[in-house]
Amino acid sequence: MYRTAHCGELTEEQVGKTVKLAGWVQKRRDLGGLIFIDLRDRSGIVQVVFNPEGSKQAMDIADKIRSEFVIELTGDVILRDKSSVNDKMATGRIEIAAKEVAILNKAKNPPFAIKDQPDTAEDVRLRYRYLDLRRPEMLETFKMRHKITKKLRDFLDDEAFLEIETPMLTKSTPEGARDYLVPSRVHPGEFYALPQSPQIFKQLLMVAGMEKYYQIVRCFRDEDLRADRQPEFTQVDIEMSFFEQEPFIAMIEKMMTELVAEIKGKSVEKPFQRMTYAEAMGRYGSDKPDTRFGMELIDLSTAVKGCGFKVFKQAIENSGQVKALNVEGQAAKYSRKMIDDLAAFISTYGAKGLAWLKVEGEGLKGPIAKFLEEEVSAAIIEKMGAKDGDLLLFCADSPKVVADSLGALRLKLGKELGLINEEALNFLWVTEFPLLSYDEEAGRYVAEHHPFTMPMAEDLKKLEMAPGEVRAQAYDLVLNGYELGGGSARIYQRDVQEKMFKALGFSKEEAEEQFGFLLEAFEYGTPPHGGVALGLDRLVMILAGRSNLRDTIAFPKTASASCLLTKAPSAVSDRQLEELQLKSTAGLKEVKADI
Amino acid sequence: MYRTAHCGELTEEQVGKTVKLAGWVQKRRDLGGLIFIDLRDRSGIVQVVFNPEGSKQAMDIADKIRSEFVIELTGDVILRDKSSVNDKMATGRIEIAAKEVAILNKAKNPPFAIKDQPDTAEDVRLRYRYLDLRRPEMLETFKMRHKITKKLRDFLDDEAFLEIETPMLTKSTPEGARDYLVPSRVHPGEFYALPQSPQIFKQLLMVAGMEKYYQIVRCFRDEDLRADRQPEFTQVDIEMSFFEQEPFIAMIEKMMTELVAEIKGKSVEKPFQRMTYAEAMGRYGSDKPDTRFGMELIDLSTAVKGCGFKVFKQAIENSGQVKALNVEGQAAKYSRKMIDDLAAFISTYGAKGLAWLKVEGEGLKGPIAKFLEEEVSAAIIEKMGAKDGDLLLFCADSPKVVADSLGALRLKLGKELGLINEEALNFLWVTEFPLLSYDEEAGRYVAEHHPFTMPMAEDLKKLEMAPGEVRAQAYDLVLNGYELGGGSARIYQRDVQEKMFKALGFSKEEAEEQFGFLLEAFEYGTPPHGGVALGLDRLVMILAGRSNLRDTIAFPKTASASCLLTKAPSAVSDRQLEELQLKSTAGLKEVKADI
Repeated sequence: MYRTAHCGELTEEQVGKTVKLAGWVQKRRDLGGLIFIDLRDRSGIVQVVFNPEGSKQAMDIADKIRSEFVIELTGDVILRDKSSVNDKMATGRIEIAAKEVAILNKAKNPPFAIKDQPDTAEDVRLRYRYLDLRRPEMLETFKMRHKITKKLRDFLDDEAFLEIETPMLTKSTPEGARDYLVPSRVHPGEFYALPQSPQIFKQLLMVAGMEKYYQIVRCFRDEDLRADRQPEFTQVDIEMSFFEQEPFIAMIEKMMTELVAEIKGKSVEKPFQRMTYAEAMGRYGSDKPDTRFGMELIDLSTAVKGCGFKVFKQAIENSGQVKALNVEGQAAKYSRKMIDDLAAFISTYGAKGLAWLKVEGEGLKGPIAKFLEEEVSAAIIEKMGAKDGDLLLFCADSPKVVADSLGALRLKLGKELGLINEEALNFLWVTEFPLLSYDEEAGRYVAEHHPFTMPMAEDLKKLEMAPGEVRAQAYDLVLNGYELGGGSARIYQRDVQEKMFKALGFSKEEAEEQFGFLLEAFEYGTPPHGGVALGLDRLVMILAGRSNLRDTIAFPKTASASCLLTKAPSAVSDRQLEELQLKSTAGLKEVKADI
Repeated sequence: MYRTAHCGELTEEQVGKTVKLAGWVQKRRDLGGLIFIDLRDRSGIVQVVFNPEGSKQAMDIADKIRSEFVIELTGDVILRDKSSVNDKMATGRIEIAAKEVAILNKAKNPPFAIKDQPDTAEDVRLRYRYLDLRRPEMLETFKMRHKITKKLRDFLDDEAFLEIETPMLTKSTPEGARDYLVPSRVHPGEFYALPQSPQIFKQLLMVAGMEKYYQIVRCFRDEDLRADRQPEFTQVDIEMSFFEQEPFIAMIEKMMTELVAEIKGKSVEKPFQRMTYAEAMGRYGSDKPDTRFGMELIDLSTAVKGCGFKVFKQAIENSGQVKALNVEGQAAKYSRKMIDDLAAFISTYGAKGLAWLKVEGEGLKGPIAKFLEEEVSAAIIEKMGAKDGDLLLFCADSPKVVADSLGALRLKLGKELGLINEEALNFLWVTEFPLLSYDEEAGRYVAEHHPFTMPMAEDLKKLEMAPGEVRAQAYDLVLNGYELGGGSARIYQRDVQEKMFKALGFSKEEAEEQFGFLLEAFEYGTPPHGGVALGLDRLVMILAGRSNLRDTIAFPKTASASCLLTKAPSAVSDRQLEELQLKSTAGLKEVKADI
């Protein structure tokens, strides 16, 4: 047997006992003729001491041991001298007096030290991911991920949801521009697609009478990666028949509050805050507002209508808006240079400028102050609740640019000014999303969530004449400004689904070709149904207090979708491609240019 | 609210209560002015009666209702007349007197009846999988699959295994001839591979210090499909550090016996039976013997050595074997024609013929009897324990052909003669597998399990000189003649892994190119480790008493890896292929022939 105890679990209660341990050498140091080793396993660290008055064999081997060696040892649990007690360490009151030791495997000197707050570049750590994962905070994150997953499964089991697996080799759809394709060897020229979500299959399970389904499932999206996206990610997928939004949302709230209680020992209030999409965009300039701090967007469009400042006046005349943030008490802190930097920041969201005013006494100061009539200034001060020392930042543009710019600026300032309570867990439902949005590039409407989302009953009649105005029976769950996931009631009638495809610009034939099997399924007794899909990686990230999705995934990929450890993707043999009857044209252009 | 109760859970206790139900119409019948509906939901079926003396509205709607309509209804739970009590039905003592009813969705007449033991061809049922899944035995199978999965997860959680997810987009390896490839858009000309198993990643998790890992994970194999294989399948993957075979096997036995107790209410004895690979091949002609019945292969090689029957004599002279089955008491039943059919059957396993003898009184009768000397006959009778009325079936050939032929014949006869106790659950460990087997086609040794399997310590020195004789520290778990899965101690030292790659015919450069990252990882403090992988689909199949893997998978594929419901795989747009810089050459040959 390699061990009878675990390093991190030893306490004064075991003093006097002989234990066998196995693990990694965190560090070794020689001190006054003794050798000390910090031995680490998954449970934690314990100090081992080798004494030359004890076993010579043990001393000889201890002399050869280096950091990250894997060893097993037998020793007695003893109390430390009072002078060497370390109360910062769980096992700091005891140590192990080594009697026997054996090296199970050696280790080269690692390319970086195994410690938290690493100062090594992330690409090096990803290349040696197995070393990076040894850091205590990584281990803790994966222990927490396990616990979160377990708790969610237990909860859903209690609620009578069946875990059912859906295929990974699925059909590519025209909505699936970002599908990963998998060539078929048996059917050359044809492809499977890896699922972006099990959407259609979970709906078919509802048609099949499974009533309550869940799955913690890998999904794939081949998109240009942003820092917080991964090509493969894990979704907590929940769907039920005879679905009604309110009891379903209440169940998800119960699930999340129980989860937070178990994982973080924190109590979160129910029901969660709720806000329509229109309200979220209006007050926070975001469909996933971080409600841990205020500094909301204040609409001044009425107050400044027809005022003397041309930029404001024209924005309103062009069906735009004028909105502002009140950066309370920060007027003195922000120099003109700093405000110029903020203007540059919001210009990336399309804003053409950032007007500003500082409140001095009861008046407004700043380059645009002179253009504002007295009653306009008074109205601004009143609307903004502005006081002496406040900084007011204005954006005048189309509603979209105003929301994007001030929404982003609000978040940036909230972080910079330390307005965010990092301990808070602010859950929020955003409801009544638009069903469709117009895609200028594609020249057609696209589904805001997905094409299977049920329109709100009272908007259904607009689906043909004014598709942009239709609201969806959809809701997103937001936590601390991150979209945890979203869900909806689904369309379950063939005629409604056909209208939806039509609104998305599908011809009858295209709809039949791509989704005929689903339309057909709807004709064989499909119950009303709906559900939600939550991003597990992001949930773990927030609960574990990490700032990077990669820290929650054992073997993540880089922003260019590469695995630096295994070097995937990689070239494959010609024989493999021949079997698939495929040719790569990559690099062919250069060859042609040479000819 | 759609419902206050579930159909199958109503009993006499609810009599007098008003309930609301929702579900599917199993059938409707009109009888003496009343309308009866069997209403089905996931929990079961209850009878609903519509009485014209009650609500006219309900009666009118009931009149329109057809099979598989989705309805909701309100009614009173009442006792049935004594004459109409149905004790075969869980809810057979009560019925629902309908007061209100509404149609939630209509249904066309389904292409086949929703009932067990379907008489519809499987391809039609796969095309309408959502209807086939409505059959009670399918629903029960998926409920059981959920329970099995839950129990395994709970057990592994209790044993401190962490559920950790490994990538689906991985690196293709030369051992991965059957990899599904995924072209990369970001890195044109390069490919990911879908994992055949998370083997390397779980080993890297051990290097990372996770110590105990599990995952219930999808795996992929693009092979020519046999009836009992699927291109994607689910594996219960378990790996631990500081691994020792005996305690690990004991833990898996505990897991399986607890599982069987919970799922089947049956007690299975521990420890499981155990047998070396050599013994299993010798006694059963199979590395996954069905031990639910006897009729073992009896080795007569010594008994018939140099006998007068040339076929036997020559087989022994050519380093072959002569083995036989004793089909006890069946001599009278098997005509010459039937024995000819058995000979034809084993010819597919390479046997050139099937010699046979019938025991009559104390003598042997049959075409070869006259060639056998008296003492040879006596030795055969003694070795075979032959009695009057027994049928003896002989195969004389190379050990492989003898094992394959008689192994298959034994199974066939065991089934035909009803020798198998279908209620039994016979678990068996097969140990000491060969590490390598020689692949004639490839002209080199290939790994019997995989290239990361640890050789038995005492055979390690043979790895270079006699690789075919090296036994592995590997074990398979067999249940009722099915391989449930297998595992091993893994190689954790760079030098041993390098020797293994060399034995597999890899050059140093090839090993480095493909597995350099793993060899490197082994140098940074890798603990001894090992584990097991069990096939979940097959486990569910056996425990649910199904005979087909497809019955355990919600949306399975056909033998040609197609989904008949969604029509995957399918053609994709030229634009998608262009983005991947790929060209399909499928069908190009015909085009060329036309030119």
